[in-house]
Amino acid sequence: MSEIPTEDAWLAGALRDLARAPGTVLGIGHDVAAVRLASDRVAVLAKDVIVDGTHFHLDACGPRAAARKALAVNVSDLAAAASVPVAFLLGLVLPRPARRDLFDGLMAGFADAAREMDCALIGGDTNVADGPLVLSVTVLGRPGPMGVLSRAGARVGDVLSVTGPLGGSGHGRHLTFRPRVAEALALAAAGVPRAMMDVSDGLSRDLPRLCRASEVGALLEGDAVPVHPDVGAPAGSRAALDRALDDGEDFELLLAHAPLSPRVAADLAARGVRLVRIGTTRPAAEGVRLRWEGSSEPLEARGWDHLAT
Amino acid sequence: MSEIPTEDAWLAGALRDLARAPGTVLGIGHDVAAVRLASDRVAVLAKDVIVDGTHFHLDACGPRAAARKALAVNVSDLAAAASVPVAFLLGLVLPRPARRDLFDGLMAGFADAAREMDCALIGGDTNVADGPLVLSVTVLGRPGPMGVLSRAGARVGDVLSVTGPLGGSGHGRHLTFRPRVAEALALAAAGVPRAMMDVSDGLSRDLPRLCRASEVGALLEGDAVPVHPDVGAPAGSRAALDRALDDGEDFELLLAHAPLSPRVAADLAARGVRLVRIGTTRPAAEGVRLRWEGSSEPLEARGWDHLAT
Repeated sequence: MSEIPTEDAWLAGALRDLARAPGTVLGIGHDVAAVRLASDRVAVLAKDVIVDGTHFHLDACGPRAAARKALAVNVSDLAAAASVPVAFLLGLVLPRPARRDLFDGLMAGFADAAREMDCALIGGDTNVADGPLVLSVTVLGRPGPMGVLSRAGARVGDVLSVTGPLGGSGHGRHLTFRPRVAEALALAAAGVPRAMMDVSDGLSRDLPRLCRASEVGALLEGDAVPVHPDVGAPAGSRAALDRALDDGEDFELLLAHAPLSPRVAADLAARGVRLVRIGTTRPAAEGVRLRWEGSSEPLEARGWDHLAT
Repeated sequence: MSEIPTEDAWLAGALRDLARAPGTVLGIGHDVAAVRLASDRVAVLAKDVIVDGTHFHLDACGPRAAARKALAVNVSDLAAAASVPVAFLLGLVLPRPARRDLFDGLMAGFADAAREMDCALIGGDTNVADGPLVLSVTVLGRPGPMGVLSRAGARVGDVLSVTGPLGGSGHGRHLTFRPRVAEALALAAAGVPRAMMDVSDGLSRDLPRLCRASEVGALLEGDAVPVHPDVGAPAGSRAALDRALDDGEDFELLLAHAPLSPRVAADLAARGVRLVRIGTTRPAAEGVRLRWEGSSEPLEARGWDHLAT
């Protein structure tokens, strides 16, 4: 009845060659999606929403990179739980007037990202509104070798480690990062993590969250924190450390674990997992502190605040 | 570090007294949520996004009614699949600057709706952006007595029925409707539906979808379509029928089924399920047609188009 293709027509075009999730009972084109969860009955779910102008800049990065990030941040949450991605649902809010090229670019990006991350699109919803592009992804997974890991479970005296360098993600890595699913599953297969999360809002905000959930404190060793070259501040400087602690969107894993035996360390190294030790957990009463140049100070949470104006 | 409460603080306040989903393995405050799916392994998922200015008007209805609608439209999708709601995730995009009273009103609305619809909040994500309020809900369910019903499965010669009157939902019912979960589960327990969906975009748009999925046609009896008094057009008029067909957001169930035996009909009536017969399925080659005043015409899909500008 109109010049504008309908949602059904757009979807039919964009979804034609999408991969199917293993175990799909019901896929796109119905009121619900349904997936069989292999050998166990636990559904693991993550839901992160990203918005143009805040988490990406559509004009600069284009729809494919935005779509990839929308899926990657959710898959990263599953990695934090050492769980295995299975499928995802997509809620799109397109800026009015809805443009077919934007829709098609997004769907092409989601199709590529779905293949890359082995996680099939199984359903969702598309709308148009007077506002920025909103990409709302919900990813469904199944538990990995240690079940569903969480931020709780760290014990006093555990080692705190990260899987890679932090800071400066805004120079491009926030769009191109690879979710640490393989690393998380290797760590879980070796029985290593006691508590784990991904560093999305900055270590200075996320480490206290892990500590609160585990009811422990922490002493972070400032000179042990791996700083990414992208921070652009002199190596070893406090400015560089602050960027590593506060920038956020690193999407490396942060975990608490017992000291690694040489055998486990060698096994992880053989699987390409490199853990960088950044501190230890302490009794909760000591709080979360940062050691820098011989003295310690409270770790100030200056990372990303989703509700800051 | 700021006058504005952080996401963590807001959530801690709002979520304190939320009910817990049965089978919750991991709830709010971690990177993922995880739920044990009782006796089977199929995760049923629905994801519908609603936006201020399009699906509700926040200034007129307030945050509690908006939150209720966001959950209800998703629970209605589970009803369409004759599946049982278990838990939901919430993706919030708040208009900038984020207002605590809006956040608290929404969370109170979601808490009330969660109790009403027996579906617990288990996780989600909160953001702020320069745009309208976006409520993105993903609901997780488990299969009902017939498994996961879909739009496919109708056979030529089936009866087409709806569970209640259509049209005029914009006068208020689009906010206050009760998702037809009880009706769907009673129908499934009696083995009745062959194909089912909820009427969200208007019968004139949704019936052809059921027919496409089932590879059948349909003959809709115009004078049998139950018209809601809210349409405000003279009973029995074509204007009233068109409103019933096109307005949308009815959230009644539309189903195809074999003719009911008197025993099944009595059993359903005893459970409070009232089916109104509105037509029959036909061979696909006949298309989807509407009989009105003795002649038949193609059913024009004039219902809600999510991407219309």
